[in-house]
Amino acid sequence: MQAEILSIGDELLIGQVINTNASAISKQLNAIGIGVSRVTTIGDNEKEILRAMKEAWKKNDVVIATGGLGPTHDDISKHVVAKFFKKKLVLDKKTLAHVRARFRSFGITKMPEVNVGQAMIPEGFIALRNDRGTAPGLLYHEKGKTFIILPGVPHEMNWLMSKCVLPELQKLHKKKLGEAIIHRTLLTVGIGESTLAEKIGNVKDFLAKGATLAYLPKTSGVRLRISVRAETNVGTKKIADRIEKHIRSKAQQYIYGKDDDTLAQVVVRLLHKVNAHISTAESCTGGLLSSKLTEVAGLSKVFPGGIISYHDQIKKSELGVGAEILKRYGAVSAECAKAMAEGVREKFGTRFSLAITGIAGPDGGSKRKPVGMVWIALAEKDKPTMAKCFQFGNERNIIRERSADLALEMVRRRLLEKNSGADS
Amino acid sequence: MQAEILSIGDELLIGQVINTNASAISKQLNAIGIGVSRVTTIGDNEKEILRAMKEAWKKNDVVIATGGLGPTHDDISKHVVAKFFKKKLVLDKKTLAHVRARFRSFGITKMPEVNVGQAMIPEGFIALRNDRGTAPGLLYHEKGKTFIILPGVPHEMNWLMSKCVLPELQKLHKKKLGEAIIHRTLLTVGIGESTLAEKIGNVKDFLAKGATLAYLPKTSGVRLRISVRAETNVGTKKIADRIEKHIRSKAQQYIYGKDDDTLAQVVVRLLHKVNAHISTAESCTGGLLSSKLTEVAGLSKVFPGGIISYHDQIKKSELGVGAEILKRYGAVSAECAKAMAEGVREKFGTRFSLAITGIAGPDGGSKRKPVGMVWIALAEKDKPTMAKCFQFGNERNIIRERSADLALEMVRRRLLEKNSGADS
Repeated sequence: MQAEILSIGDELLIGQVINTNASAISKQLNAIGIGVSRVTTIGDNEKEILRAMKEAWKKNDVVIATGGLGPTHDDISKHVVAKFFKKKLVLDKKTLAHVRARFRSFGITKMPEVNVGQAMIPEGFIALRNDRGTAPGLLYHEKGKTFIILPGVPHEMNWLMSKCVLPELQKLHKKKLGEAIIHRTLLTVGIGESTLAEKIGNVKDFLAKGATLAYLPKTSGVRLRISVRAETNVGTKKIADRIEKHIRSKAQQYIYGKDDDTLAQVVVRLLHKVNAHISTAESCTGGLLSSKLTEVAGLSKVFPGGIISYHDQIKKSELGVGAEILKRYGAVSAECAKAMAEGVREKFGTRFSLAITGIAGPDGGSKRKPVGMVWIALAEKDKPTMAKCFQFGNERNIIRERSADLALEMVRRRLLEKNSGADS
Repeated sequence: MQAEILSIGDELLIGQVINTNASAISKQLNAIGIGVSRVTTIGDNEKEILRAMKEAWKKNDVVIATGGLGPTHDDISKHVVAKFFKKKLVLDKKTLAHVRARFRSFGITKMPEVNVGQAMIPEGFIALRNDRGTAPGLLYHEKGKTFIILPGVPHEMNWLMSKCVLPELQKLHKKKLGEAIIHRTLLTVGIGESTLAEKIGNVKDFLAKGATLAYLPKTSGVRLRISVRAETNVGTKKIADRIEKHIRSKAQQYIYGKDDDTLAQVVVRLLHKVNAHISTAESCTGGLLSSKLTEVAGLSKVFPGGIISYHDQIKKSELGVGAEILKRYGAVSAECAKAMAEGVREKFGTRFSLAITGIAGPDGGSKRKPVGMVWIALAEKDKPTMAKCFQFGNERNIIRERSADLALEMVRRRLLEKNSGADS
């Protein structure tokens, strides 16, 4: 089973919008055993859409298009789809009732008339009700092939994919969805791609037939993706387990999680296990570390809060950093980072705390303390506070991202010492 | 001048990695007058890469590929490119010296041998030195057409695009780069797509020939993109100005900025103008608001810091929220939001402050206070504190994003009252 994704929208071709939809759809299709052969991104241009649809429809079992279904004049996709399949647009009464009800639920009694057009669909298509917006998804099935078009707004598209599209595809292609693809990703932090590859060794020595290993570097670490294709789920899982075991035997200490884990989630899970709280004191990251933690649901059992001390004055007044530390060592120093961590830990009464202070740039660097220099401290009740110095390059947002991630990694390693033998 | 982007990598087709490179490259090409006709994403698969390269090379003046240039076994792009152009790989000594020097600069004296392969390039290609990594960019020019391949790691790709690729393309295609494309985007917040379209009116009444207007909804607002294609820069700019003026006359109050502005940047600029400081008190957003502010460089003149009070106990101890407020009204209430804002403002001695308290879910909602309910308060010295209640749906991260953005919007509107007539 093979699919192509058509992402439609000028905004994607001028770089205004990042194509997050294609990856979200790919992930969901893979999960039910449909591989994605290609993503084609084209503009709101009839000729280009028709050309791409022709190629995609010829070479795949499933085609999923997104974008251009909105109520405004620049949304042409539905008309082009109708033209491609030689269908006329007809009013779908159920959809119209749903659109009207949506406006009422927001307290808008007089619906803008342009929205009536949302209920016009190509004849013979099935409208997929969109509970997150006004444009329905549209599905067409012919000779064992399925075409689907969804609105481009990510949270509408995601809702339609999971609630309508996947169940429909599983029904329509029941017989062919036997072959399984397993992807499993091990997430590492704090090690470069080629050093990691040397540690893990030559893939020929441990990869089975039909299995691949990919190295995917990103801001704070390298992801290792194991892929196994086979006829049954049983075989693939065993093969993936064996490869994972080999990799872990070579690089366990750098691996913080799997698949969609985030470092913050892993840290929160470990904190839950030992029933400990953590607090934060942030300077150059200005809330990014805390924000990563608070993305995790159910956080309140381990995180009471933090202090953002962007100014030195706040480091003094809120965190109790001594004036002589700031004078003698400066705000970007082991001494200041440690004092920040200890200050917030004592104030908030937590077992652990993290502090970050550094130079995110573009200004403020010097020869001795260049842009990208960051001190991270980890304090723990009844233990000596530790601090580490990093050099994270010279791009403000990369420096901030790496600082927050490496702080999380510091506490993860500490928590693992406590949970030795526990699954991370 | 027309280009196609080829994004190569299995990780893009299984949804593991979002294709941020394609939009970054599109934006940079547009800026020098090269339109992108299509982005094709394919896997690390020789047959698929060759098929995509053939189509792209036939239909475009410029083809830019990314991905698969790393040092590990799964990186096949360079070999496939060499095969497509019928070139053999040869050692580029300059590149090898550069790769060795990079390892030395990180204090690694024994370079992993696999990295020697990074210096092998197809004969007749130009190696573009990569100061951010070990894989050079590769450029090939033939019969007025240019092919380029870059590493897929975003910050390496971006560095190579701006430092090497754009200057090379401008040199190689000097004659053809006359025709200009202008894109200009007005950014709105706090208004839905169809209501905005009704306010702005029928595009036929105000769009000139060759001009388009696109509505692009995202989490916290709708972007309005004006595009004008013409022969000279002068004409396009005038036409874009006229369209912008029309839109502003209809929807000025919702427009917070242009193009790559962020709400945080706009707020920081306005604060600079009136020389005022702001502080933050965050509960459900847990640092996201402060993190958005601290993404902006040069922030320290207006932002001393903030308090993340995820627990009620911290709301009391750090922000002075009265126990009776929490008991009588609860943490998600106008009273608590106002007390949080006033507490942090007084503590940090700032003129303004913002506070956010709400239910980000998935748990913690009730019939009276459902998930998605958020109170945002704005305090200002010598003024009554205001608070507003929002209902932001039921997805944790969308609730958090919208909360942070609408908080920024509240202070933006307040600052505009002070700067009436000033350009936002």
